Amino acid sequence: MINTTTSVSVLGLGLMGHALAETLLAAGHPTTVWNRTASKADRLVEAGATLAGSATAAAHASPLVIICVTDPAAVREILDQQDGTLDGTVVINLTSGPSSAATEFVGWAERHGVEFLDGAILASPEMIGTADTTIIYSGPRAAFDRHAETLGRLGTAIHVGDDHRQAALLEMAGLGLMWGALNGYLHGAALIGAAGVDAATFAPLAAATLRAVADWLPGYAKQIDDGEYPALDGTLDIHLAAMNHLLTESETLGLNLDLPRYVKSVADRGAADGKGQQGYAVLVEQFANPA
Amino acid sequence: MINTTTSVSVLGLGLMGHALAETLLAAGHPTTVWNRTASKADRLVEAGATLAGSATAAAHASPLVIICVTDPAAVREILDQQDGTLDGTVVINLTSGPSSAATEFVGWAERHGVEFLDGAILASPEMIGTADTTIIYSGPRAAFDRHAETLGRLGTAIHVGDDHRQAALLEMAGLGLMWGALNGYLHGAALIGAAGVDAATFAPLAAATLRAVADWLPGYAKQIDDGEYPALDGTLDIHLAAMNHLLTESETLGLNLDLPRYVKSVADRGAADGKGQQGYAVLVEQFANPA
Repeated sequence: MINTTTSVSVLGLGLMGHALAETLLAAGHPTTVWNRTASKADRLVEAGATLAGSATAAAHASPLVIICVTDPAAVREILDQQDGTLDGTVVINLTSGPSSAATEFVGWAERHGVEFLDGAILASPEMIGTADTTIIYSGPRAAFDRHAETLGRLGTAIHVGDDHRQAALLEMAGLGLMWGALNGYLHGAALIGAAGVDAATFAPLAAATLRAVADWLPGYAKQIDDGEYPALDGTLDIHLAAMNHLLTESETLGLNLDLPRYVKSVADRGAADGKGQQGYAVLVEQFANPA
Repeated sequence: MINTTTSVSVLGLGLMGHALAETLLAAGHPTTVWNRTASKADRLVEAGATLAGSATAAAHASPLVIICVTDPAAVREILDQQDGTLDGTVVINLTSGPSSAATEFVGWAERHGVEFLDGAILASPEMIGTADTTIIYSGPRAAFDRHAETLGRLGTAIHVGDDHRQAALLEMAGLGLMWGALNGYLHGAALIGAAGVDAATFAPLAAATLRAVADWLPGYAKQIDDGEYPALDGTLDIHLAAMNHLLTESETLGLNLDLPRYVKSVADRGAADGKGQQGYAVLVEQFANPA
């Protein structure tokens, strides 16, 4: 249980940073906190946290430093203030941002003798510390391993790769998927709504559909990684025929047609490439190809 | 257990029709089958099914008639052949098609004294008869109730409404959702693939994302049915900021930009309508509105 006592500094006490600090404190970690507006630390200090007078002081207080602020610009501001040596410190950025920000922060870390990990929290603040939370990390495996037990307090901690960009890219990939699913649900709700059916009738069927798709993903992933797309559950041409029905229904009901047209355009391009008899996952080529 | 002995006719013995007939036979229902190519019935006849000499004979053989063929045109062909009275018969169409086909078949049923239900099978053939299968039905509730036990042999049988169009519309809504989720996954797989991460790494995170979205849907449905969209898990403006990151990442990695542009265009329209501080579900208005 020696790792229980690892000291941690948390920089940034927005909803998410506050939840991270609170969870670490509750798990028995000596926790130093800092926030631009110091009053945000009040409840944490009452619970036993140490308030640092500056971001620099906070970064020097612990061997493990977690930064969770509004955006990459706020991270940059914190990093630019650092002086003195931080040799041996592991700095983890859990601020959302593009992968280019992670690459930039690696440069800073190299100049300051710091081991740097970039992470992404796939959860909302109230879920921190529960089994439903996944946090992904990318960067040097050894630095992750050294603090894996501490990071495990915050949620399931997964090291996704040594390339620092990977956590940000996986977060973006997950968000794109989320929007795809949400937009599909909203179009469906609009479609049945136009026919007088309420959204609550669709919700359980829609949830079952998403859970079914979730179950298919390992098979899709294998096809993509193998580069072979047998049509196990219907060819692209069969999907295309049904997409035409969706377009017709949407037209008849007077809906916005952008979603059915977009869905069909991707499959049309796949069919035009001669992939009509392959499985749906062959369309990954269309997403990867800007042409 | 009296309903166990309800006789059923199954017209159409493609993969799906065959699975339906096989499941009914196995559950002890006297089953009459018909298919344009009679040899498709061989295995079923060996298992105890009665082969009808014509679609008309098959329709007259049982009080419950299930039609599951290639497309609405093939249903039309079967219905047009019917002669004599079918008074009191319940005919259920489980062939995929647009809701306009269901409306058309209702007209035929009225002229022939038949009670008609239109249904949609939300499963693949090998799942028929298992707990994972949902089949939705729309049309007169009394006709559904009379045969609910028999229909329950095929999977979870849900009566979704008296309006015959509703099963077809819900099927379409579910397919649109499925494509939205699949395209989101494929774009994500292309994105991480361009950075050298394999699709298998993304699959478990993507599956967890879809299961999380599935859990949100009842709350989204309530907002849509209430017409009020409080921002419980982030405003539309916050989503928009992250959508810009997805677009930037996709550009940097040289992907096709249609998906991130499409996702952003929907949210941009919502923001332009002054809904930036509301929750994501407010975008249902954009899907419903052709402007």
